[in-house]
Amino acid sequence: MLEDSILNPALLTDLYELTMMQGYYRFNLNPPVVFDMFFRRQPFGGGFSVFAGLEDVIRGVERLRFSGDDIEYLSGLGLFRDDFLEYLSNFRFTGDIYAVDEGEVVFPNEPLLRIHGTLIETQLIESFVLNIINFQTLIATKAARVFIASREGIVLEFGLRRAHGINGAIAAARAAYIGGASATSNTLAGKLFGIPVKGTMAHSWVMAFKNELDSFEKYAEVYPATTLLLIDTYDALGSGIENAIKVGKKLKERGYTDFGVRIDSGDLEYISKVVRKKLDEAGLENAKIVASNELDENIINQLVNRGAPIDIWGVGTNLVTADGDSSLTGVYKLVAKKINGEYEPVIKISNNPEKITNPGIKQIHRFYNGNGMFLADLLAEVGEDITPGREYKFCHPTFEYKYMVIKDYSDIKPLLHLKMKGGKMVYTPPNLKEIREKSVSNLKRLDDTYKRQINPHIYKVSLSENLKRIKFNLIERYNGKK
Amino acid sequence: MLEDSILNPALLTDLYELTMMQGYYRFNLNPPVVFDMFFRRQPFGGGFSVFAGLEDVIRGVERLRFSGDDIEYLSGLGLFRDDFLEYLSNFRFTGDIYAVDEGEVVFPNEPLLRIHGTLIETQLIESFVLNIINFQTLIATKAARVFIASREGIVLEFGLRRAHGINGAIAAARAAYIGGASATSNTLAGKLFGIPVKGTMAHSWVMAFKNELDSFEKYAEVYPATTLLLIDTYDALGSGIENAIKVGKKLKERGYTDFGVRIDSGDLEYISKVVRKKLDEAGLENAKIVASNELDENIINQLVNRGAPIDIWGVGTNLVTADGDSSLTGVYKLVAKKINGEYEPVIKISNNPEKITNPGIKQIHRFYNGNGMFLADLLAEVGEDITPGREYKFCHPTFEYKYMVIKDYSDIKPLLHLKMKGGKMVYTPPNLKEIREKSVSNLKRLDDTYKRQINPHIYKVSLSENLKRIKFNLIERYNGKK
Repeated sequence: MLEDSILNPALLTDLYELTMMQGYYRFNLNPPVVFDMFFRRQPFGGGFSVFAGLEDVIRGVERLRFSGDDIEYLSGLGLFRDDFLEYLSNFRFTGDIYAVDEGEVVFPNEPLLRIHGTLIETQLIESFVLNIINFQTLIATKAARVFIASREGIVLEFGLRRAHGINGAIAAARAAYIGGASATSNTLAGKLFGIPVKGTMAHSWVMAFKNELDSFEKYAEVYPATTLLLIDTYDALGSGIENAIKVGKKLKERGYTDFGVRIDSGDLEYISKVVRKKLDEAGLENAKIVASNELDENIINQLVNRGAPIDIWGVGTNLVTADGDSSLTGVYKLVAKKINGEYEPVIKISNNPEKITNPGIKQIHRFYNGNGMFLADLLAEVGEDITPGREYKFCHPTFEYKYMVIKDYSDIKPLLHLKMKGGKMVYTPPNLKEIREKSVSNLKRLDDTYKRQINPHIYKVSLSENLKRIKFNLIERYNGKK
Repeated sequence: MLEDSILNPALLTDLYELTMMQGYYRFNLNPPVVFDMFFRRQPFGGGFSVFAGLEDVIRGVERLRFSGDDIEYLSGLGLFRDDFLEYLSNFRFTGDIYAVDEGEVVFPNEPLLRIHGTLIETQLIESFVLNIINFQTLIATKAARVFIASREGIVLEFGLRRAHGINGAIAAARAAYIGGASATSNTLAGKLFGIPVKGTMAHSWVMAFKNELDSFEKYAEVYPATTLLLIDTYDALGSGIENAIKVGKKLKERGYTDFGVRIDSGDLEYISKVVRKKLDEAGLENAKIVASNELDENIINQLVNRGAPIDIWGVGTNLVTADGDSSLTGVYKLVAKKINGEYEPVIKISNNPEKITNPGIKQIHRFYNGNGMFLADLLAEVGEDITPGREYKFCHPTFEYKYMVIKDYSDIKPLLHLKMKGGKMVYTPPNLKEIREKSVSNLKRLDDTYKRQINPHIYKVSLSENLKRIKFNLIERYNGKK
């Protein structure tokens, strides 16, 4: 049944993972291995991403079981032998997962999750890990872009009706909140994750009463403390704002000040400026203006730059569908394999140098300057001593001759932490509000030049000298074998 | 819990639907009304859409209940009074839903669902209806575009890892199959909906063995009847195709002919042509070539036009995320309201003439020519006699003076059928294979000019004379009141 699948991702996998698993099982080819999950390119042409989705991954992997039903279905496909199906029916993921914290600011080619286990078990969870992380990280990043464009203003996520299915809507609400949205209109997401829920009124409300003024008055009667009136059903700058002002003044007389209007069509700069003027002239200086209608970070940025007096941004479709980049192209690649009791780094060669993977079991070390701002990230093998007190060579991951030296820094912190051990969750997931605070405060530590909407400064993710040596030696060895 | 929400969409609603409902409840404003769900613009700049998602909507609405848990959550928001919460705790949707069949080819401004009920109950389900229909129709349409570009070839949906969350992947697999995909890699979608599941191997398989040839031989040993070898891990046109040919020849000797290779990088036209030649020279004329790597309908169309000998198309990200149009902009609008025992048509005015709604309770009548091809669609009020035997005036929905007359037609069929009555499902949903057959055969009845990928011929959706009169009278009445 569908609902089980949400809690248990056993079959939520590409068929080829299962057919490959059977092959490995048959040939008893099940060495300990390490996979990295990472992405190669920032979405939206931007300069950063916000990591999200980890808790769902860890909980899902912990729960993963093949039910009798699942085994019966697989058996019916005629692809699997009984001994392998028997093996699956007892399957548990027993590996370890290291990951960066949700809400962390991350960059291309950094291992966001590092999965240790046997070949068979790590292969199985690939599709699930990618599905969850690719989507939530994409949306958290989009939300952060919108939030930054609004100058850390109030962003409401309004996308339920245009999101990609039910879970597309729920996971998007979660990720949007992590990225900086203040609230969601999605009531279920509010219930599930404790995200604040907000809403105004639809045009159908205004049309359901005998006229616009009546509809506004009735709304204020029911929700005097949170009256937000949609003024553009008939004529925003005519009847709309006039009727709203009548209602706003009465509310003010009664001591209610949390009043506002929403504009959902037309030229938002022009209309918001006229509306602000009319509200102020009517003595409603505290009234808020909410704008919606196919907003995204570019439109918001332009409106803010032009001085549009908009206080709250309702962002729907373009936020929850990540308009501009429909997916984060995260991948899951083998980076190490145990041979004769030792992990050996593994590389995946490609004709495209930027697609050659960074081999080995790695840690991300983030360097900070004296103001606590991010300076650059260094990938190094686990076990390398990367601690303050000396200068570091930051080697370019693609061009062998390029490097920089960093000596002026004040701190170094590792970003990957153990989240699952032997198939059990070993961390206490922060609540969503804490994750949001982490992402918002982390983004403040990233220089503004990396946060430009277009053509941003590229944050450096480099290799340690040791890792560089491993990588280019493996490339050379591969070239020698050709 | 999340899983309940999949089966029961009570809280899967924008908060404002609930706050408006409480207002209607308070003022005892709950007349019978009719809402239309429709979209205004074809996605992807195309000329048609394929309707999908209905079964999920009907099943969800039938199940809709507020649990004790839900009521408690809503109560905690401090927005709702006890009498309204009590009302919600007994709430059932008791209305009627008319809809077009899943797999039907549809056009802008046609009511895809027509929902009859009281104001309160119809308002509640808006967000849920839009979420499901917008997404599944979008993906079914994208899949149909890909399927047409492949000249009705074999399209495999490979998008799980890039889809928008879990349900985004599952619903996308369902909709992609409706639109013409032959199979999915998503094992769970296969189990849930009976969609055929397919897969090949990953680069990690090739890297897990001592060398490429060994990995190919081992695969063929386990899956001799369905061996598809990924040849581009090291060098597609070098070791890749050579090793594949060795294995293919041995399989052929053993009598296995369902053999093929997959190309996942590089120039697909160039590589597929060289690979085809090498396969043919080796006597493997029956070997299939599968191509994947960020494919979409435009790339596939170009490859087919250029004669690339590709037999099977693996399409992932761009299919399941509907790249190029991240959402179908379906809306849900009030079209009639019962006043003094009679339904009166309702219009929503907009400054943009194309956004003015078509009022009234409507049926879609599809006219066919003698070859069974679609000629044009006529929207008319329910009750109008639109039957063969006379000529019909097709009035333009926006320009009052424009019309055409259709007299040469051979048949007329209504598209909207009763699917839910008094809150109960009253149709037997076809299985997914039947829906796919319907969509594929329906698309054959649409002239090729409407199926061009860019700048297609615009299919006419017109108003009956009666409906036109109603619409423009309402506009005039509105103008008079300004």
